[in-house]
Amino acid sequence: MRTGRLEAFSDGVIAILITIMVLELKVPLSAPKFGDLEPLLPIFLSYVMSFVYLGIYWNNHHHLFQVVDRVNGRILWANLHLLFWLSLIPFATGWMGENSFAPATVALYGVNLLLSGLAYSLLQIAILRAPGGNRILADAIGRDFKGKTSLILYSAAVALSFLSRTAACAVYVLVALIWLIPDPRIERALATHVQDDRDKTD
Amino acid sequence: MRTGRLEAFSDGVIAILITIMVLELKVPLSAPKFGDLEPLLPIFLSYVMSFVYLGIYWNNHHHLFQVVDRVNGRILWANLHLLFWLSLIPFATGWMGENSFAPATVALYGVNLLLSGLAYSLLQIAILRAPGGNRILADAIGRDFKGKTSLILYSAAVALSFLSRTAACAVYVLVALIWLIPDPRIERALATHVQDDRDKTD
Amino acid sequence: MRTGRLEAFSDGVIAILITIMVLELKVPLSAPKFGDLEPLLPIFLSYVMSFVYLGIYWNNHHHLFQVVDRVNGRILWANLHLLFWLSLIPFATGWMGENSFAPATVALYGVNLLLSGLAYSLLQIAILRAPGGNRILADAIGRDFKGKTSLILYSAAVALSFLSRTAACAVYVLVALIWLIPDPRIERALATHVQDDRDKTD
Amino acid sequence: MRTGRLEAFSDGVIAILITIMVLELKVPLSAPKFGDLEPLLPIFLSYVMSFVYLGIYWNNHHHLFQVVDRVNGRILWANLHLLFWLSLIPFATGWMGENSFAPATVALYGVNLLLSGLAYSLLQIAILRAPGGNRILADAIGRDFKGKTSLILYSAAVALSFLSRTAACAVYVLVALIWLIPDPRIERALATHVQDDRDKTD
Repeated sequence: MRTGRLEAFSDGVIAILITIMVLELKVPLSAPKFGDLEPLLPIFLSYVMSFVYLGIYWNNHHHLFQVVDRVNGRILWANLHLLFWLSLIPFATGWMGENSFAPATVALYGVNLLLSGLAYSLLQIAILRAPGGNRILADAIGRDFKGKTSLILYSAAVALSFLSRTAACAVYVLVALIWLIPDPRIERALATHVQDDRDKTD
Repeated sequence: MRTGRLEAFSDGVIAILITIMVLELKVPLSAPKFGDLEPLLPIFLSYVMSFVYLGIYWNNHHHLFQVVDRVNGRILWANLHLLFWLSLIPFATGWMGENSFAPATVALYGVNLLLSGLAYSLLQIAILRAPGGNRILADAIGRDFKGKTSLILYSAAVALSFLSRTAACAVYVLVALIWLIPDPRIERALATHVQDDRDKTD
Repeated sequence: MRTGRLEAFSDGVIAILITIMVLELKVPLSAPKFGDLEPLLPIFLSYVMSFVYLGIYWNNHHHLFQVVDRVNGRILWANLHLLFWLSLIPFATGWMGENSFAPATVALYGVNLLLSGLAYSLLQIAILRAPGGNRILADAIGRDFKGKTSLILYSAAVALSFLSRTAACAVYVLVALIWLIPDPRIERALATHVQDDRDKTD
Repeated sequence: MRTGRLEAFSDGVIAILITIMVLELKVPLSAPKFGDLEPLLPIFLSYVMSFVYLGIYWNNHHHLFQVVDRVNGRILWANLHLLFWLSLIPFATGWMGENSFAPATVALYGVNLLLSGLAYSLLQIAILRAPGGNRILADAIGRDFKGKTSLILYSAAVALSFLSRTAACAVYVLVALIWLIPDPRIERALATHVQDDRDKTD
C-alpha cells in the first residue's frame, strides 16, 4: 500500500484539530470593548502553545513519511494511535485555558503531550520494523536522542505542575523550541540518502 | 472516472467525523481538579470505541479502493450511503455517552453499526457488479464470512442491550477486535493478485 | 493552472458542510429513551434531504471537473461563489428543522437551493467561456434542460411554501430524484468524447 | 521536500476556517419568521466579508505555490505562521458580527487582516530566500506594490475604526476588491515564465 491516503487522512485530522481548538475562543456577546477580551487571554495562550505543538507534529509527520514508501496494517494502526492522542489535545488545551492553567490541568496537558510523544515513537518503531526495514529513517533518528529527551522532559513537567505551574509550562515551551529550531545534521543526512537512492535508481 | 476524488472526499468526511466526536467531550468550566473529569468517563469510553470503529472503516475503505480502478455513479452513491450512516456515529456515540450507556442508547448505537455494516456490504456489491467485475475483490472477500458474522453479531447485540448493556458492549468490542486483528490470508491473496496484475502489465 | 487544488479544496469544503450539519442533531442530555429522540425527527429529515443535495453537488462537481483541464481566475471565483451558497445550506437546514418546516423556513431553504443552482450554472458558463472553450462539456450539457428545469422548480417551490409546505418539500424531493437517477445519455456522450480524445492523444 | 502535503494541509485548514465561520450564524430556535433573521444581518455581512478574504488568501496561496517546487523547514513554518493568523479570522469575524460592528471589534478585525497580510509577505520572503531563490516569483511580485499598499490600508483602517466604522469597513472592502479584480500583467508574466521554463525542459 502506498502512503498517499495515510498522509491525506492524517493531514485532514491534524488540520481539523488545529482549527477546532479556536472554537474554544468563544466570541463574547454584548462585549464590544478590548477589555472584554481579557478573560480570553489564558485560553488564547493555551491555543498558541497547542497550535505550535500540532504544527510540530504535522511537520515531523511530513518529514517522517518522506522516507516511507509503503505502509502495512501495523503502520496504519500506529498512525491512528498517534492521531487518537493528538485528538485529545483540543480538550486538554481547553481545560487548561478555561481554568487559568490550574495545576491539575497543566499536568493533564503534559500527560497528553507525553502519550502523543510515545505514540510517535511507536509509529517510528512500526516503520523501522516493517519488512525490509528503513535504513534512511534508522540513520536519521539514530538513538532518537531528541525524542527520548522530550519524553523525559514531559514526565518531569507533569510532576512539576503541582509545585510550579510556570516551571511546567516553561518546560513545554522548551521542548517545543527544541523541535522548532531546525536540526541541520538530520536534514543533511536525509538529503544525502535521498541523493544516494536517486543515483541508484537512475 | 478515477477513484482519487472519491477517496479524498471519504477521507475528508471520516477525518471530520473522527474529530468532531471529541467536541462531545465538553471542557468543564471552573472545574480545575482531576475529580471534575469523572463525569466525562462514559463519554470518553464511548469516544474511544467510536474512534476505533471509524478507524476500522477508514482502514477497510483504504484497502477496498486499493483494488478498485474506476468508479461509476452507482459506486459513488453506495459510498455516500456508507458515509451517511457513518455520519450519524458521533450522534449515537454522544447519546450513549451522555446517558451513561442506558439500554436504548446502547441499542441505537448497535443499529447505527449494523446499518453502517450493511452499507459497507452494499458498497462491496456495487463494486463487484460494476462492468468488468472485480476479480481481486471477489477472491479477497470470498463469501464475506467476516462481514456477515459482524452483521449477525450487531443484531444480537441490539437485542441484548435491553437484557445486559455490558454484554451488548462486549459484543461491540468483540467485533472491533475481529477487524483489528490483521487477517494475513486476505493480505496474502491481495499481494498475489497485485503481483499477477503487475506481471501482466509489465 | 491545474484543477487539482480546486478539486481538493472543494472536496474539503463540501465534506465539512455535509458533516457539520449533523451537529444540529444535538444530543439530548438526561434523555435515555427512544421517545426522547422524537423531537429530533424534523431535524433528522431536514438533515437527510440536505445530505442528499450536498451529495448531488459533490457528485456533479466531480463529473464537471472530469472534463476540465485548466482553471483561470474566473473559474476559481465562480467555484468559490458556488461554495458560498452551499456553505449556507447547514444554516437553512437547521432553521427549517428546528422550526418544524414552518413556511418561511421552507421558502428560505428553496431560495438557498435556487441560488446554489444558479451558482452552479454560472460555474458551467465560466468553464465554457474559458479560452479554448470546452467542447465536451458543451455537448454534454446541451441546452442544460435539467439545470434550467431545476431552477424553475425551485422558484415554484419557494412560492408554494406559503400555500402548502408539503407540496414545496415534495418539489425539493422531486428535483433531488431528477439528479439522483443517472442520465445514461450524458454518461455515454462523455465516454465517447473521452474515448475520442484518448485516440487523438495516443 | 515537495509542496504537495503543504498545499493539502493549507487547503484543509482554509476549507475548515471558511466553513466553521458559518457556525457563528446560529440557528434561531422557535423563530419561524423571516423577521426573526434580522438580528443575524450583521453576522451575515461579517461572514460574507471574511468568506471573500479567506477565498482571496486561498486563491493567492494557490497561485504562489504554482511557482514553488520544493519547500524547506523555514517555508513550512512561515506557512504555519500564516495559517495561525488566518485561524483567528473566524473569532475576529464573530466578535465583530455579534457586536454589530462596534469600533473596537472593527479595529481588531483590521489588526487580524494586517497580521495575516504580514505573514503572507514573510512567506513570500521565505520562498524568495530559499536556496536557489525563485526568479519567477521575484519577477511576478516585483516590489510587491499591491501587498505593501494593502498593509498600509489595513493600518489606516485600524486607526479609522474609532472615527468612523463605516469608513474602516469601506477600506476593508476596497482592499478585497484590489485583490478580487484580476491583475492581467502578473498572469501574463507568470505565463511567459512557465512557457520559458517548459521550453528549456523540453
